[in-house]
Amino acid sequence: MKYLHTMVRVSDLEESLDFYCERLGLVELRRKDVSAGKFTLVFLAAPGDDSAQVELTYNWEPEEYTGGRNFGHLAYAVENIYESCQRLLDGGVVINRPPRDGRMAFVKSPDGISVELLQRGDPLPPQEPWASMDNAGSW
Amino acid sequence: MKYLHTMVRVSDLEESLDFYCERLGLVELRRKDVSAGKFTLVFLAAPGDDSAQVELTYNWEPEEYTGGRNFGHLAYAVENIYESCQRLLDGGVVINRPPRDGRMAFVKSPDGISVELLQRGDPLPPQEPWASMDNAGSW
Repeated sequence: MKYLHTMVRVSDLEESLDFYCERLGLVELRRKDVSAGKFTLVFLAAPGDDSAQVELTYNWEPEEYTGGRNFGHLAYAVENIYESCQRLLDGGVVINRPPRDGRMAFVKSPDGISVELLQRGDPLPPQEPWASMDNAGSW
Repeated sequence: MKYLHTMVRVSDLEESLDFYCERLGLVELRRKDVSAGKFTLVFLAAPGDDSAQVELTYNWEPEEYTGGRNFGHLAYAVENIYESCQRLLDGGVVINRPPRDGRMAFVKSPDGISVELLQRGDPLPPQEPWASMDNAGSW
């Protein structure tokens, strides 16, 4: 038995790829357009970590997606949590839970999927502007 | 950057562990009771696949969890999809999408999290009772 992927639905594929790839740093592994079913599947993974994937399902005739509390978040270890958050911030992504502790941060995808970032290894020393940045919204 | 886990909230920890471990076949790796925050975290993984985990969050003062459509499913490859489905069925789990094709099945956790099972490698030859089993509900 082996974990393959977590699937999330997205209402705007370009906006979602911008978030998951350009801002968060995942890479696209493969894509499947299914015209009969009017949907597109895009498989993403952290670079070099292809064995654990996120599958984006984009229905061409979109529904509105309301977040359910039963699903919590996707979590990734990152090399430098400040650099990861800076890239997200520069890309216009709200840092809902800034890494004040040099260890943990939360952001949300365009469809409200929470993504947790965790510093690999020991926490980094506290650093501005993160150390004094307030929480924003929920995650 | 590395995938760590997908977190889902559960309203009944014992019932959920029964589903995820006894029926589905995951194993418990570690558990953390946080009395200050009144929650328990349990980390699960497919046997021998510790690098991709599911984190169960159990809040001691439970909320009601309504499923949101933005979260789709967790997916696992299995050695024999008929044996996996038989174990789930024997444990009282509804097979929402039976493996009629010897390749794919869907079930749901007690909190409505869809779990996809995919036959590792080539599909198995069609086999009763699966081949003529109807879908049940949604997934």
